[in-house]
Amino acid sequence: MDNPFYKNNGPFKIYDILKILDLDSTHFLENKNVFDIKDLLTSNENDITFLHSKKYKKIAKNSKASFCITTENLKEDLPKNCIPLIVKNVLVAMSLVAAHFYPESINDNFDNTVEQNNINNFKDRVKFGKNVLIGENVTFGKNCFVGHNTIVEKNVMIGNNCSIGSNNIIRNTFIRDNVKILDNCVIGKHGFGFFPNNNKNLRYPHIGIVLIEDNCEIGCGSTIDRGSMSNTIIGQNTFLDNQIHIAHNVKIGKNTIIAGQVGIAGSTIIGNNVRIGGQAGISGHLSIGNNVEIAGGSGVIKSIPDNLKVMGYPAKNIREFIKENK
Amino acid sequence: MDNPFYKNNGPFKIYDILKILDLDSTHFLENKNVFDIKDLLTSNENDITFLHSKKYKKIAKNSKASFCITTENLKEDLPKNCIPLIVKNVLVAMSLVAAHFYPESINDNFDNTVEQNNINNFKDRVKFGKNVLIGENVTFGKNCFVGHNTIVEKNVMIGNNCSIGSNNIIRNTFIRDNVKILDNCVIGKHGFGFFPNNNKNLRYPHIGIVLIEDNCEIGCGSTIDRGSMSNTIIGQNTFLDNQIHIAHNVKIGKNTIIAGQVGIAGSTIIGNNVRIGGQAGISGHLSIGNNVEIAGGSGVIKSIPDNLKVMGYPAKNIREFIKENK
Amino acid sequence: MDNPFYKNNGPFKIYDILKILDLDSTHFLENKNVFDIKDLLTSNENDITFLHSKKYKKIAKNSKASFCITTENLKEDLPKNCIPLIVKNVLVAMSLVAAHFYPESINDNFDNTVEQNNINNFKDRVKFGKNVLIGENVTFGKNCFVGHNTIVEKNVMIGNNCSIGSNNIIRNTFIRDNVKILDNCVIGKHGFGFFPNNNKNLRYPHIGIVLIEDNCEIGCGSTIDRGSMSNTIIGQNTFLDNQIHIAHNVKIGKNTIIAGQVGIAGSTIIGNNVRIGGQAGISGHLSIGNNVEIAGGSGVIKSIPDNLKVMGYPAKNIREFIKENK
Repeated sequence: MDNPFYKNNGPFKIYDILKILDLDSTHFLENKNVFDIKDLLTSNENDITFLHSKKYKKIAKNSKASFCITTENLKEDLPKNCIPLIVKNVLVAMSLVAAHFYPESINDNFDNTVEQNNINNFKDRVKFGKNVLIGENVTFGKNCFVGHNTIVEKNVMIGNNCSIGSNNIIRNTFIRDNVKILDNCVIGKHGFGFFPNNNKNLRYPHIGIVLIEDNCEIGCGSTIDRGSMSNTIIGQNTFLDNQIHIAHNVKIGKNTIIAGQVGIAGSTIIGNNVRIGGQAGISGHLSIGNNVEIAGGSGVIKSIPDNLKVMGYPAKNIREFIKENK
Repeated sequence: MDNPFYKNNGPFKIYDILKILDLDSTHFLENKNVFDIKDLLTSNENDITFLHSKKYKKIAKNSKASFCITTENLKEDLPKNCIPLIVKNVLVAMSLVAAHFYPESINDNFDNTVEQNNINNFKDRVKFGKNVLIGENVTFGKNCFVGHNTIVEKNVMIGNNCSIGSNNIIRNTFIRDNVKILDNCVIGKHGFGFFPNNNKNLRYPHIGIVLIEDNCEIGCGSTIDRGSMSNTIIGQNTFLDNQIHIAHNVKIGKNTIIAGQVGIAGSTIIGNNVRIGGQAGISGHLSIGNNVEIAGGSGVIKSIPDNLKVMGYPAKNIREFIKENK
Repeated sequence: MDNPFYKNNGPFKIYDILKILDLDSTHFLENKNVFDIKDLLTSNENDITFLHSKKYKKIAKNSKASFCITTENLKEDLPKNCIPLIVKNVLVAMSLVAAHFYPESINDNFDNTVEQNNINNFKDRVKFGKNVLIGENVTFGKNCFVGHNTIVEKNVMIGNNCSIGSNNIIRNTFIRDNVKILDNCVIGKHGFGFFPNNNKNLRYPHIGIVLIEDNCEIGCGSTIDRGSMSNTIIGQNTFLDNQIHIAHNVKIGKNTIIAGQVGIAGSTIIGNNVRIGGQAGISGHLSIGNNVEIAGGSGVIKSIPDNLKVMGYPAKNIREFIKENK
């Protein structure tokens, strides 16, 4: 999927990128063009990628990228086609390169292209409430509703038969068909990602989007952050209740049901047909299998295989939890 | 209480209702009129009701309804005056019948009757902020305030001396006197109720309302969902802090105090003079007695009798919890 | 810091204050002027203060106030310069006196001075979105952004290089330089403080402000309540994720990082360089030291000394928690 939200200033020569990273170019025979920076999974031979944790070992082995920002310890996990660029702090280095490709992606000010008059472009297809603000290049399918005071920022794409409620803010987002977004949501703001630094933390680019697939429902007061280097995805027919927080890069499968006030931390992957009870929390960078059930109020701090029911903090097999708490 | 929010298309003949449920009418002597579908407690002899869980056994025994959608196992709990209609899935069947009476209750799009000019109808009684939107047939008592950007949808009734803040959305709601609603709340949207179904979940009707009684306060960013077949009620002089989620059909008593970020799941009943600490969660379909104290962060998964203090997850007697966690 | 948000109706004679408290003035030689009511820490010899808990014993010993509302049991903790006024309920008495000095501080209706036209006063310094409402006497530094539908109420001060997003409500707040506030926040409403009372709770004055220091970020959907008698403070370079609730009088230090859906109850003090994981909750009136790490989902019910890592509910040393939960 192409990213319409940020202009890619590339391609850049790899020698220029090495300079940004303060690395030596002596060992490079060819000053190749690099077209984009992407995550391990979606990058191809024209791209640079990054590997910062053993957790991504398996995915790294199959990466098609020509270059990978990584550390001395992790470089052995890369395939032959992928030249490691060894740095001390992978995420800081990645962030510098990403900011070079996408200089506008750190700034996250309000979209000044939105206008109320832009609703006139869609009068045949969309019923608008009062005071709706629509940005440049927004697209809508047929038979949509957009409630009062809602702001749809530039380049957002919304499919057919979508019902967007009132007081929502939607940016950097693709919404498929038959999606219902209730009220007071903020969808597509940058994730809570930065490098802690005394007196002034360093924000890093969030060039990912939010993708909401067919037939989803998003409850009132929910926040779904866009991805940093990959996308945040809400899979088909997944329903979210009120006041849910989905952090950057989270990917949720199909037919999943998430009750009120649940929080899912960054980069966690949730399977299909998962049920998550109210106020449960799931740590970042985990993998939750298909058909998993997580009881309300649980705190999940480890990945969960398919078909398991868990409860507690830290969450464990529900039978064990109930036995221990009789 | 009559429901001004949805037109009741009834009465319908019981034979027609049996047809919707794919049931045989052979054993029925009389093709009686059925005027409404209601819950066990509020239905009378002109109505049809439903019974889907043993939890409601006691209430079922006193139901005045002439007909009750239920299962083979539960039918014995009904009184003689109430003819059981036996189905496989009570809630799906109830939902089909409710949609027949109230076809507009599934759709929950924004209210297109709201207008800024409607504030002129209340200039003698209400002080309005900027950009306030008021729907058809809204009523206000004396001496009210409605803050900027707030939306009050059609048929909402607001009493005397109420102070509604800014950026709120209020629909399907009755508000009594001296009620204070702070900012950014969504009150009266449909509950998180549907039948999970691969690829496309089935939403069911929410014909209940939210009733907020005298002297209540509702904190910023809170969500209170309206009931499905009964009402969601916030009792007199009950105060809610910020970011609280009250699910559909919840009934809260008088003089209860609920701290920030608490969540109460669907159909739970909370007594009078209850204190609930911050971030506590209460599962659905429970009964919490009078004068109960629930410590902050607790996860309540069982009903609690009067006068108990509980803490922990699962919540237990606070003395026990403190002893175990010394 | 002077309080521009509420007019101080003082000074009052101490005999008048004694009358409000239904106290005898026989033992007072001099009918001194009292200029303000302040907390133990910030009051000086012209002020009256209050002491209602042993927790504040140490601070009480150094109070410079001339008078202190307190109880028989607590009066011995006061220094000689400070005359105790003995009452049954310190907070109720304090509230009566505060309401006498600041009669407008209990009412928290929307600000009716806000106007869209007021943005014209700042066109050289601030980029405004659509439908922005600005109150009387608001000030902005250079190079700021204020997103769509945001409301900045009277007397709010905002520094240089601040980026305020859309749909925010800001009142009773000072914001320093380089602060970023994302979307849908409510900052500066009165705290959840009142005296429970059958049928009609008694609200007490909140004359404190919210102070957000340089370089902070406040995530979407967050609520930060202003202080009652002292201020709520977010220290320099502290970052808050989405859906966070900060209650009245909380003081957070520098370089602290707080993940999504965390709640911090009233009057708690958090140190510098603290890390708080998602959905953690911290009880009121606690003191959390510098460099503390609180794992996501933890429930903190006791103060924590510097440099400790804690986890669990109730939160304990993280090593202990992990050992017990293997």
